[in-house]
Amino acid sequence: MNAPRLRTRKLDVKNGRIDLTHGSGGRAMAQLIGEIFREAFDNDLLAQGNDQAQFDMPAGRLAMTTDGYVVSPLFFPGGDIGSLAVHGTVNDLAMAGARPLHLSASFILEEGFPLGDLQRIAQSMGAAARAAGVKIVTGDTKVVERGKADGVFISTAGIGIVPEGIHLSGDRARPGDVVLVSGSIGDHGVAIMSSRENLQFETQILSDSAALHGLVAEMVSACGAHLRLMRDPTRGGLAATLNEVAHQSGVGIRIKEDALPVKKEVAAACELLGLDPLYVANEGKLIAFVAAEAAEKLLAAMRAHELGRDAAIIGHVVEDENHFVQMATSFGGDRIVDWLSGEQLPRIC
Amino acid sequence: MNAPRLRTRKLDVKNGRIDLTHGSGGRAMAQLIGEIFREAFDNDLLAQGNDQAQFDMPAGRLAMTTDGYVVSPLFFPGGDIGSLAVHGTVNDLAMAGARPLHLSASFILEEGFPLGDLQRIAQSMGAAARAAGVKIVTGDTKVVERGKADGVFISTAGIGIVPEGIHLSGDRARPGDVVLVSGSIGDHGVAIMSSRENLQFETQILSDSAALHGLVAEMVSACGAHLRLMRDPTRGGLAATLNEVAHQSGVGIRIKEDALPVKKEVAAACELLGLDPLYVANEGKLIAFVAAEAAEKLLAAMRAHELGRDAAIIGHVVEDENHFVQMATSFGGDRIVDWLSGEQLPRIC
Repeated sequence: MNAPRLRTRKLDVKNGRIDLTHGSGGRAMAQLIGEIFREAFDNDLLAQGNDQAQFDMPAGRLAMTTDGYVVSPLFFPGGDIGSLAVHGTVNDLAMAGARPLHLSASFILEEGFPLGDLQRIAQSMGAAARAAGVKIVTGDTKVVERGKADGVFISTAGIGIVPEGIHLSGDRARPGDVVLVSGSIGDHGVAIMSSRENLQFETQILSDSAALHGLVAEMVSACGAHLRLMRDPTRGGLAATLNEVAHQSGVGIRIKEDALPVKKEVAAACELLGLDPLYVANEGKLIAFVAAEAAEKLLAAMRAHELGRDAAIIGHVVEDENHFVQMATSFGGDRIVDWLSGEQLPRIC
Repeated sequence: MNAPRLRTRKLDVKNGRIDLTHGSGGRAMAQLIGEIFREAFDNDLLAQGNDQAQFDMPAGRLAMTTDGYVVSPLFFPGGDIGSLAVHGTVNDLAMAGARPLHLSASFILEEGFPLGDLQRIAQSMGAAARAAGVKIVTGDTKVVERGKADGVFISTAGIGIVPEGIHLSGDRARPGDVVLVSGSIGDHGVAIMSSRENLQFETQILSDSAALHGLVAEMVSACGAHLRLMRDPTRGGLAATLNEVAHQSGVGIRIKEDALPVKKEVAAACELLGLDPLYVANEGKLIAFVAAEAAEKLLAAMRAHELGRDAAIIGHVVEDENHFVQMATSFGGDRIVDWLSGEQLPRIC
């Protein structure tokens, strides 16, 4: 008797392209999921093959987050949309002090997208997830007609476990708290823009895209009770993140321009591109607010970690009914660091 | 002193459109999130305003799922992309027998999309979530340039709690098990296609889009231990879902055409559009596999629920090393119900 399923040829990853059948719920979709995603994400929970993953959890505090990724170009120096989609969601969990556990991944694919690129992205996601100790346990794939999307968009969601006694939230900054950043700012945005504009520098600027939960675990272990909040300054950069916190906590923030770690080549590229590093996205950096008495201890813990080597104290929290972020400039003046009102860098993540 | 934040005008929802600043991480994005999403989803966890939601959970078995929604048109008879994005993800949780708890929502918006439509979609999501007893606790918004997406795409993820003693999985069907469907098939796909093709029928065909966890709770309570698995036959319809289960469980399935509930107007529209209801998507129906001795009890429990009024026993599981799905036709013959190899209905969900 014939068994049609056995006669299916393997996907032609080298030359093949996404077509509408890959989103139809039929055999082509099953094959795409099996040969590209299940293979790249390889884990026992995804292998359950149901429309949802099931797993046992201990009682406790959970964190849940989601992010969409529309970065252009899809592949950039230091990463790609796949690794970014893992790091970004892991980091949103880590900012709660959480240990990231499981991710979901939803793909929206444009008809005509090369299967080879999709495989490369899936494998990059799988590698980033394994490196971060998380599993991509469930997913979904949709296909839209040519011209109705831009290659691939990915939305990841994640859950993680918040350690007992840790309560980090954007409304917990208090006057006197110290503000730290875990390293140089602007690297991701400048890497993307350089790649888009085809700029060449003596030193290639790489995205800082990285999973921060390991660094966070060290920080929590060093000064857990003194930590007020953490944020990763992605879209809108340090400026947007500090303004968000000032607004949420009802405080002012003062930072020092001289204290901000900015790589020479990033500063030069920003000059060339007309960008301000304060507003440029980061994908592997965090800002921490901590009680003053624990600031030096926290700084030491951060610097002891590979991803916090260039950590710095950049400012402190003040009372300010206007909730302004102000910066003491290198020239000795003061300026208000406002939210960006327009769009500096579209599709940076 | 001036306080620029207080001078921000409210969004012009009536005439305004999405622009790239709404995805920039700056003030325009904060305003969009506040005035459209936070208002529509209104709940304490989302109001935390962090990049992740945090909540306490009892120990137990969790289910996690995600789905992307690219349906076209965005508004259709019986629903819209917003209610669909809630129902679909709630249903993927419910198919594990789980009580849905929290959802995340990731929006990818096209520059130029009307704010009024976005608000309508967000309010529909909020209403669907409240009706289903779930909260949209965290979200994300990205904007891409005009022509790089198609209005709005939504990815939702969800978590739910699986009751003790319930283990539903696609690999648990056994020869002798009885197969039930909760109601008429093909309604959603035909509603979308009729809307796309601007077809008029005497009776308007509505999508069946609905949250099924209430029906599922009744089924679990009536015959929990005898239930093998449940699936919602969305893309690819009943045919794809039965083939998936046959494949996953390593069994054959036999169904009877005469037993399949299909509304007259849906059958007529399928005839006109050249569609086979077996392959047409449903968004408010489920298939259940149950041990034979509990089949009648399960049927009664389903029919007692509003969303299972037209439930029917449609077939049973057999041994078959080829894992075929076969149907006894109304004409007295047998046919193999294969997976669809091509794409019948793009962007149906």
